[in-house]
This record gives sequence, C-alpha cells and structure tokens, in this order.
Amino acid sequence: MAEENLSAVLYAKGDLRIEHRPISEPGPNEVLLQMHSVGICGSDVHYWQHGQIGDFVLKKPMVLGHEAAGRVVKVGSAVSHLKPGDRVAIEPGVPRDMDEFFKRGQYNLSPTIFFCATPPDHGNLCRYYTHNANFCYKLPDNVTFEEGALIEPLSVGIHACRRAGVTLGSTVLICGADLFAERLGVAKELGADFQLTVKKDDGAQQLAKKVEEILGAQPQITIECTGVESCIQTALYATCSGGVVMLVGLGAAMTTVPLVNAAVREVDIRGVFRYCNTWPMAIAMLSSGKVNVKPLVTHRFPLEQAVQAFETTHQGLGIKVMLKCDKNDQNP
Amino acid sequence: MAEENLSAVLYAKGDLRIEHRPISEPGPNEVLLQMHSVGICGSDVHYWQHGQIGDFVLKKPMVLGHEAAGRVVKVGSAVSHLKPGDRVAIEPGVPRDMDEFFKRGQYNLSPTIFFCATPPDHGNLCRYYTHNANFCYKLPDNVTFEEGALIEPLSVGIHACRRAGVTLGSTVLICGADLFAERLGVAKELGADFQLTVKKDDGAQQLAKKVEEILGAQPQITIECTGVESCIQTALYATCSGGVVMLVGLGAAMTTVPLVNAAVREVDIRGVFRYCNTWPMAIAMLSSGKVNVKPLVTHRFPLEQAVQAFETTHQGLGIKVMLKCDKNDQNP
Amino acid sequence: MAEENLSAVLYAKGDLRIEHRPISEPGPNEVLLQMHSVGICGSDVHYWQHGQIGDFVLKKPMVLGHEAAGRVVKVGSAVSHLKPGDRVAIEPGVPRDMDEFFKRGQYNLSPTIFFCATPPDHGNLCRYYTHNANFCYKLPDNVTFEEGALIEPLSVGIHACRRAGVTLGSTVLICGADLFAERLGVAKELGADFQLTVKKDDGAQQLAKKVEEILGAQPQITIECTGVESCIQTALYATCSGGVVMLVGLGAAMTTVPLVNAAVREVDIRGVFRYCNTWPMAIAMLSSGKVNVKPLVTHRFPLEQAVQAFETTHQGLGIKVMLKCDKNDQNP
Amino acid sequence: MAEENLSAVLYAKGDLRIEHRPISEPGPNEVLLQMHSVGICGSDVHYWQHGQIGDFVLKKPMVLGHEAAGRVVKVGSAVSHLKPGDRVAIEPGVPRDMDEFFKRGQYNLSPTIFFCATPPDHGNLCRYYTHNANFCYKLPDNVTFEEGALIEPLSVGIHACRRAGVTLGSTVLICGADLFAERLGVAKELGADFQLTVKKDDGAQQLAKKVEEILGAQPQITIECTGVESCIQTALYATCSGGVVMLVGLGAAMTTVPLVNAAVREVDIRGVFRYCNTWPMAIAMLSSGKVNVKPLVTHRFPLEQAVQAFETTHQGLGIKVMLKCDKNDQNP
Repeated sequence: MAEENLSAVLYAKGDLRIEHRPISEPGPNEVLLQMHSVGICGSDVHYWQHGQIGDFVLKKPMVLGHEAAGRVVKVGSAVSHLKPGDRVAIEPGVPRDMDEFFKRGQYNLSPTIFFCATPPDHGNLCRYYTHNANFCYKLPDNVTFEEGALIEPLSVGIHACRRAGVTLGSTVLICGADLFAERLGVAKELGADFQLTVKKDDGAQQLAKKVEEILGAQPQITIECTGVESCIQTALYATCSGGVVMLVGLGAAMTTVPLVNAAVREVDIRGVFRYCNTWPMAIAMLSSGKVNVKPLVTHRFPLEQAVQAFETTHQGLGIKVMLKCDKNDQNP
Repeated sequence: MAEENLSAVLYAKGDLRIEHRPISEPGPNEVLLQMHSVGICGSDVHYWQHGQIGDFVLKKPMVLGHEAAGRVVKVGSAVSHLKPGDRVAIEPGVPRDMDEFFKRGQYNLSPTIFFCATPPDHGNLCRYYTHNANFCYKLPDNVTFEEGALIEPLSVGIHACRRAGVTLGSTVLICGADLFAERLGVAKELGADFQLTVKKDDGAQQLAKKVEEILGAQPQITIECTGVESCIQTALYATCSGGVVMLVGLGAAMTTVPLVNAAVREVDIRGVFRYCNTWPMAIAMLSSGKVNVKPLVTHRFPLEQAVQAFETTHQGLGIKVMLKCDKNDQNP
Repeated sequence: MAEENLSAVLYAKGDLRIEHRPISEPGPNEVLLQMHSVGICGSDVHYWQHGQIGDFVLKKPMVLGHEAAGRVVKVGSAVSHLKPGDRVAIEPGVPRDMDEFFKRGQYNLSPTIFFCATPPDHGNLCRYYTHNANFCYKLPDNVTFEEGALIEPLSVGIHACRRAGVTLGSTVLICGADLFAERLGVAKELGADFQLTVKKDDGAQQLAKKVEEILGAQPQITIECTGVESCIQTALYATCSGGVVMLVGLGAAMTTVPLVNAAVREVDIRGVFRYCNTWPMAIAMLSSGKVNVKPLVTHRFPLEQAVQAFETTHQGLGIKVMLKCDKNDQNP
Repeated sequence: MAEENLSAVLYAKGDLRIEHRPISEPGPNEVLLQMHSVGICGSDVHYWQHGQIGDFVLKKPMVLGHEAAGRVVKVGSAVSHLKPGDRVAIEPGVPRDMDEFFKRGQYNLSPTIFFCATPPDHGNLCRYYTHNANFCYKLPDNVTFEEGALIEPLSVGIHACRRAGVTLGSTVLICGADLFAERLGVAKELGADFQLTVKKDDGAQQLAKKVEEILGAQPQITIECTGVESCIQTALYATCSGGVVMLVGLGAAMTTVPLVNAAVREVDIRGVFRYCNTWPMAIAMLSSGKVNVKPLVTHRFPLEQAVQAFETTHQGLGIKVMLKCDKNDQNP
C-alpha cells in the first residue's frame, strides 16, 4: 500500500516533487483519510516560489496542501463520531496545547498549533493522510468533496465577517485587490450591489465620499482585502462612526493611517489570523444553498500533474485550481 | 436674581470674561441647577488659548465648563425623578436626536449631540444653569460635589476600560505621557504595579519586550494615553495575541504603525469618543469607596477668580483645579 | 381637510367605530403621514373583543392599528431626513424619556414609551397620522407599502432571533401553535427543513428525543411560540447544552418547568418585549429579497370596511388582513 | 515511595477509607504533584453519604477531593511552563475531547470531560497526584496553598458573576439559603450592603417590593443560591427589566415560576455548570488583595484524619474544612 501514497512534496524553493511516501497509521484520536480534492492556495505557491512566508521557513521536505476533503478509510481507537466511508472536510489547524487561547475558544491564536503545509507541518496534497478526527467534519450527501475543500478559503471570509459583526442588513464595503474585469464580474454575480473602480490619483478622503454617495450612507463595516496603504486609509475614512474596519489583506509591515480619525469616531480596526469554529457554519451554508462556491473551481488536475497545476495558479489563470487525489474518482 | 448668575464666558481666543448672564427657566424636561463645583479641563484651557479644537471653532461667546456638579433649585413640569434640594452630577452630553446611534445605545456618537462648552453649546461654569433632567444624576450623601464633578474625567476612563474589556485580573499596560516623578508617584499610589520610564532611543519592539519581562506576560490590554507614534507602536507590539489596544491619547492625524503585526495576531485597535452610560457606574464606584478621586483636586478657586484658575491649569500646576460656584458653600 | 381623516376608533369593548377625527399638525420633530396600508394584529382584535390586554385597559376612545406604512405629506420644522412624498414604514414605539433603558439601546423596555394602539396611545388606522420622524423609515422603491406595514410583525421575529443569537448555520427548533395543515405548509415553504406534529400524549422528554433524532443533533436554539407549558418543557429538554430557549409565545402567568435541567446545562431562557432597532435590518431584508413576506397578505379591505376586516381576522381566516387607508391607491 | 501515597478513597456509600495507593508517573503533558491542601466540598460529603449525585453513581473505589493545591515534583516530557518546586492550584476539570464545546471556549460543557472526584474519575485528596499541566496554575508567592485550594469554590462565583454580567456598580440581589446569624454576619463583613431575612409567609411579589424599597431600585442582577421555588419566584419578580436571574442553587427538578413576567420584561434566566477560564482571574484577585478568602477556612485536619474532617463538614460546623496532605508542611 505504501507505494500508493503519492504526495506533492516541497523540498526547497522551486523544488516540488511528486513522490511516494509511507502511509501513517492513525493514532487513537485520528482518522486515516483517502484524499479526494485539494485546492491550491496562494500560500502553497508562495512556499514553492520563495521557500518561506515571513518567519515560516521551509527547512526540510514538506507535503503541501491544506484546502482539502477526503474519505475516511480507518479510524483510531478513541474515535466514535466518524466511521470508514464517511466523506469529510478537513480543518487544517489542530491545536497541540490546551493553552489559554484554546480554553477561551480562540485556538487559531495558539502559538503551538499544528497547521497543514506551514513548515514544519505536513499538508494533505497526497493520496493518504492522517488527521485529528475532531477536525474532520462529515459532509452531507448534497455537498461535494470540492465544496468541502473550498470550506477552507470560505472560512477566512466567515471568520472575518463574524469578527466584523456582519449580519443581515449590514452595509458593507469590500476593498478588493482585483482589477480584472472578469473577476469583478464574478463579484457582482455573487452579490455585490455596487462597484467602484479606483484610479491611481484618487485621494482616500474623496474615495470615502464617493463610497458614501454610491451607498447612500457610510458603510458600517469595511472588509479590507488589499493590504494597500491607500486602501486602508480609504477604509478608515469611509466607515461609519461606531463601525469596524476588518483587515484581511496584508501589505507592508508599517502602514501610515489616519488613526485619530478612526479613534474619535470609535471605528474599530481588527485583523484576522486564519479562523476558528467555522466548518459547521460553512457546511450549513453549502448544504442549504445559501452560498454557491462551485463556480469558483475553474481548473482541475490529477495529483500526478501537481507541478502543472501550481504553474497554472502561479500564472493567475482562472480562480481556483483543484487537484484530484483519488485515482478512481475525479468528480467534483 | 438675574444679576446673580456670574458666568465664565469665553468671547474669543484669550478673552475670558467673568460676567453676569440671565438665568434660564427650565423646560419641561429640564432642571435649574445652582452650580457648586466645576473642574477645569484641558479642553477648556485649549479653547481659551486657541479659540478652537479641530473643527470646533468658537464663533460667538460661550460659557466654559463641563466637569460639574450642583444642586437642583427648580424642576420642569415633566420631571419626576428629581426635586429641589437634590445634589446632582451633570453629564454634559445630551443627544438632541433620537437617531440610529442613540437608538443603539451609543449616543456619544450622535453627530448632533449637545455638549457643554463645545462650540456653540454653553457650559456650566456659572452660578445657575439649566440641563436635561435625565442627564443629571442624584449623588448619594457620601459623595461630595467635587467627586460629582470629577465623574466627567473618570467617565473617560470607564468608557475606555469598558470598550477595552478590562475586568478583574486583566493584565493592563497604560502608556501615559507624563514624565513628572511626582505624577508617576501618584499613579503608583493609585494602583500601578510596575512602572517603566521610556528613554528617547528605546525602540518600540525592545520596549515591548521589556514590558513582557516586567509583567511576566504580554499585557492583554494596552490603554494608550499619549498619542505619540512611537508609543502607539510599542502598544501594538506589546499587546498579547487576541488583545486590545485602546487609543485614548490623540496625536498627529496620520500615524505610522505596525498594522500587519497587530492584524495577524488579532490585536484589536479601538478608540473612544467621550463616553456614554458611565455616570451610574461612576457614582457606585465613588459611593462604595472602590475608587478614591479626592486627592486629585489640588487647587480651588472661587468662580470670581476663574481667570487665575485657568492660568494655574495652563501652567501645569497640580493635577485638578476646581472652581467653586456657590458663594455660600466652598466646601468640597 | 379635517372631515377627511376617517379613523377606526375603539370606544369600548366591542364598540369599534369608523369616524372622522381632526388632523394633527406635526410638531418640530414629527411628520404628518397619509396612511396607506395598516395590518390587523391579534392585539387589535383582542382590545376590540375584551377592552384590555393584561394591565393595559381601554379607558377612553382610541384609534387602533400599529402595523403601518404611509406617505409623508408634511414635515416638522426640525426634520431633515424626510420630505413630502417619501414613502415610510412606521415603528409604533417611540420613547418619551431618555431614561436608562433608552440610553443603553433597549428603548423597548422604557416604561413610559409611547406605543400606537396600546391604551391610552392612539394608533394609525386612519387617513392622516402624525408620528416622530425618527421612527419613520424611508422605504426603497422596490419595497411596497404593505411590505412596509409587515415590518412590524417581522420585527418581533428579528428581535427574537437577534436575542437568541440565530446566525447562518444555527440549528433552530421552532415550537409553533399552529396545527392547521395549510399553515404548516406555508412554514415548510418558507424554510422549515423538518416538521413534527405533536400529539396529546407525547411526553416532553420523548418529544425532545424525537427532535434530536430528526435534526441529527440537539437544536442550539429553540424559539418557543406557543406559550403552552408542555411545549416550554419540551423546548428546555430539547435544546443543546450552552444553547438558548427564546420565549415568544405567552401562556399562563405561572409555568412549571425543568429549571434545573436547563440551568446545569447552561441553557439560557430569554423572553422578548416587542423589539428595538429592527426597521433598518427589516428593510434591508425585504429590499434584497432575502425574505418574502408578500404571500402572507391574504385579505384586503378599504378602511371604510374596518369592522368587516376585524371580523375576518377574528374568525381566523387567512393569515394577514390588510386595511387600505388611501382612497386613491389601494395597491399593495 | 508507593507506600507513601496515602489517599482518601470512597469505596461505597458510607465507606471512606484512608489507604495507600500507587503513585502514577506523569504522562508527557502531565505533572506529578505533592498535594498540600484540599478543601472538603458539599459534593464530597454527598458522595460519602449517598454514593451518588444525580446520574453520577459511584461504581468502584474513587479518591475524593477536587478543591486542591500542591507542589510540582516531576514534569512530563512535553511540559515547559512548570518545573519541580512550583506551587500550583489545580483546576479539576480537564476536557478529554476537542469537541465543539471546547473549541468554542465552553469546555465545562463538554460531556466527556474528566473531573476530579466525579465518578469514575479520581480526585486529589491524597499525597501524590498527577494532573494535566495545562490545568495547573502557578501560584504567586503571596498566595497560600489554602487560597489556591479555595480557587475552586471561588470559581463558581466568578463563573456565575461573569455569565450574569456583574460589573463595577451593578446592583445585585443574592438569595442565599443560609439563615444562621453567624454566616449572615460574615456575608455582611464580606461586602453585602443590606440584608433581608425572609419569613415563611412572605409572598414572592411582596418580597420583591421590599427588595426594591431597601435597594432604592430593582436589582439588575439576582444570583439565586437557594434552589427554593419561592426564592426563584422572588428573584424573577424582583429583577429589573432587561436584567438577569442567575440560577446557582439547585432544588427540585420541576419548578413553578412566573415565566411570562420575566419574559415580557426581558429578564434572562441563566444557570451555571461548574466554570471555565476562571483560575487566572481568581489568582489575580487573591494576589492583588481584591478578595480575601482566608477567613473562610475554619477547620484543618491532617489527611490521616479525613474521616473526622468529613464528619465535621457533615455536621455543618464552621465554613470550610481543609485537609492538610503534606506531612512536613501543615501551614495554610
């Protein structure tokens, strides 16, 4: 069976190999999964291109992949909520310590957390993978493996919206980096009511005024996804007193912003680190049809062609590239 | 009676006059108060010295004063919870509109709010003053008028701590502007466990490390009261993941800060604008002896010597200068 | 113009008259509205049938109606956010005092609140009506007057869900009083995933088990809309540890319930009194199409036939009976 | 060393033996503790007297004790935050599963939690005990072992107050079961402002009125510690609209209460199950001197005399009986 566990292993910057690795036995609280679909994330590509992200540096070979879903093939001795055959989505972050963060329900902030494909922790872009059973979530019949894999990026959005307090009727401004007409079209299709394209010379305060004019009111919440200084400035000016600016996009380490303007209007500035407690909500959203992520998958490759798949993502083609890890089932 | 209403009126930058003004009749929801004690705030002095604060510009004569307590002498026709003789503390901000902010309990953010001694609204540094009865809070017998007047500055602290989530056992870093040994001594007396004096060349990240060393842990909350860029940077680096940096001090409009560092550790950045719903808590704190503000009053002047009192505050002498508005009772 | 203000006035138990009343002039913060659509609520019928609800006793003639929308015809001197011609939905509760409840954003709990058609306050089932402008909410073009009128009952649901913490993905049990197959059909159409009809002899704990079996998990939140003792018991047993039981239906004053079971599982028990801060969210829900209330209107009568309309509601026919107050526009 | 581990083992209802048991080796995430002080809780006595509490039935011998503090003598291979010699307080509940409750920060609700001296889990009334290191909290030098042991009962109060939203200035009614003049005296000493002794014939609504008269206002929060039906009724009537009734005391399974009165005034009813995230706050409270629990210890016995100590508690003598487990150090 060992030779069957084909895996996408990053050996060093630029050195991604598709090779066989041993299959682990699940520990008492773990399950062994036959992987089905794994999406490629910008961070996977970044490790491939640069060998590091910030302080996380690749020092030894690491399996990539953390947007994943698969099928249970074996359960550990203490696992009772899953059984072989169950289709599951995988939450890639598993706390190692029951520290103060975990105890308070913010396990994403635990400094010793295991996280798939963040060095030195292996990811799940492979045929067989073991994971903590409490971080594998059973998929309803009407949710596909690919939707299950897409819960990971969806979770970033859920966590950001939850921390920002987005609810029914919230007036929200989303600052997105993307200027491609095609992608803006998808955004419109997926629910944006208005769009405003920013030009090089637009001042932050003027843009804030334009946003107010278009919306008919200042947004209560701004989700800032660019990390660009001028956009963060616009976000702070644009947001209503008592509102929230959510920093999702990351840019330069130091940023010059109108802090006084935000502070005296009690506009809170909040960031996100990954997510916690999002899988059950995401599954409910997908299963009920409240959100449709299927159109986001634009490319599919078998696991064997992982390098080609990474090239595709690197070139910015399409939206989401999905790797198919199950030789016998390449369906969504 | 009219000639009795001696008032401290600011006519223009540098032109503070002590003169008689008519006594108003209370409206149905108002009370007429005989003022007893009014503290001088930095903002009063700033209007006197500069004629404006930010966008608030003095355009016509305005009575100064907003840290105040007095005695009810007459109640409006619709007032039932107060009666002549009641000793009250005055909340200086009274919403004019039942707008979305007021409806949600954030009336301090209402853009049309009346606020004592913020142009063009008159303050209460005078003998007789009318105010909305719902914003006058009865003082228990064991709380003095001066303590009642000090509820206003205390409210800034309460609102900041409440928004920051300070509770029993919170580890809190307070960045204060003050370098006077005497004032630092008072801070220690009033509850600070440790003190760290900053030198010119200290880097923000090194200071953050020192704070952690001294406290034995990163602070969960930082109350930044200086508005100085390097201090805000220290505050962000120093605060624990999942914590809060509260911006109370105000500095330059634009500030360069390590936003990414704060965002990825989910350190929230929040500001305050005045306060709301703080008087009842403040009265309980004073009445129960949980907080002692009495030592903060270091100077007292009769209302007639208001100019001299303003000079004293302007020179930075002592801590709080109190004006005594009742000719027959100059006690605390 | 005065003879034009036809109004549905309840003189006493059983004595509902359609008569002309004078048209009021709007005060500075008020608007004069030409009423368009007013829904009949169970409480209107109850006052008509019994002359009182609990401690609220009809002592003098009172105009009925509080589920209402109309068009602005005149604005008070201090009103700036509305103008003649604006179509608005009316929030019937307007706080009279800026008391502790209002200051904290819970103005629905203010004991002195004005509330349409709760004795002695007049309602708006008439041709012309004046109301506080801050409690009139402009309707977007794609929201009809009738939808505007239905915001009042919708608000009860919003307030209950908000206080219960219902969010995307919440597993919710709704205990409804209604056993009519037709109405259960509408509930299914409007989003219920499963339905369970209760029989006379079902025990509360057995029902709780059945609910868990059907849902595949205990509900996190139960919205109890019957007020029946056995249903409240079922609600408490059925709800997940750490969950919430929301009491919306009202029954007997004293209720026997398994408090210990709820307490040691930290299942919170919460009630609702009307609503606050719901109109903006409701308008957003209607305008965006997230909720469709149109099918709920099953009967329409011109204002002149108000008595007949009340009879219809009293007989339990259809779902919502709407009165059309504008002679020249009887459209939805 | 094994013969040294004297332990208080409950074999069956009424059969408490003091005998030697083997000393466990700490697992990788555990520490071995030399126990110092262990308080006797009513639940320990209840197991001794009845062999069960509700569904928790003693089926095999179990070491008693869960209010405990001791000294680290050995640390597991993965433990880094503690070292031999550290003095620690022990949180007796340790979640076994990373389930939905734990992930959300409500680990006390996890159904599979380990809990000292709740069958079948052993407690720590012994000489040597191993425990998860993440649930052992280092005591500052100025906090004694006995104070450390008292953190457990203090935690019940912290958790209840936290869930009730008690803060500075809250007006709180505490319904206590205790009618002994001596204990009421201690309550007064420890901070109660007023006391009201209830007589047999007092009606719940009349008592609620008396409470309001004495306090000068309805309490915002009521902490109900008796579990007696009439007291719970009083609690609900007495509490202010928008307030909270916290159920801490447990009585009969079914309780008849004025639910409608509470619901329409939005008085929330909440219970508590043990506690979570309380040790750090408790240590801060004790170390800073904000709370003084020392006078609560009225009796001390060496571990060898555990049966006598249990008799003392059973007879209701004093307040807290402490067992001293360290032969060489019987100090507080």
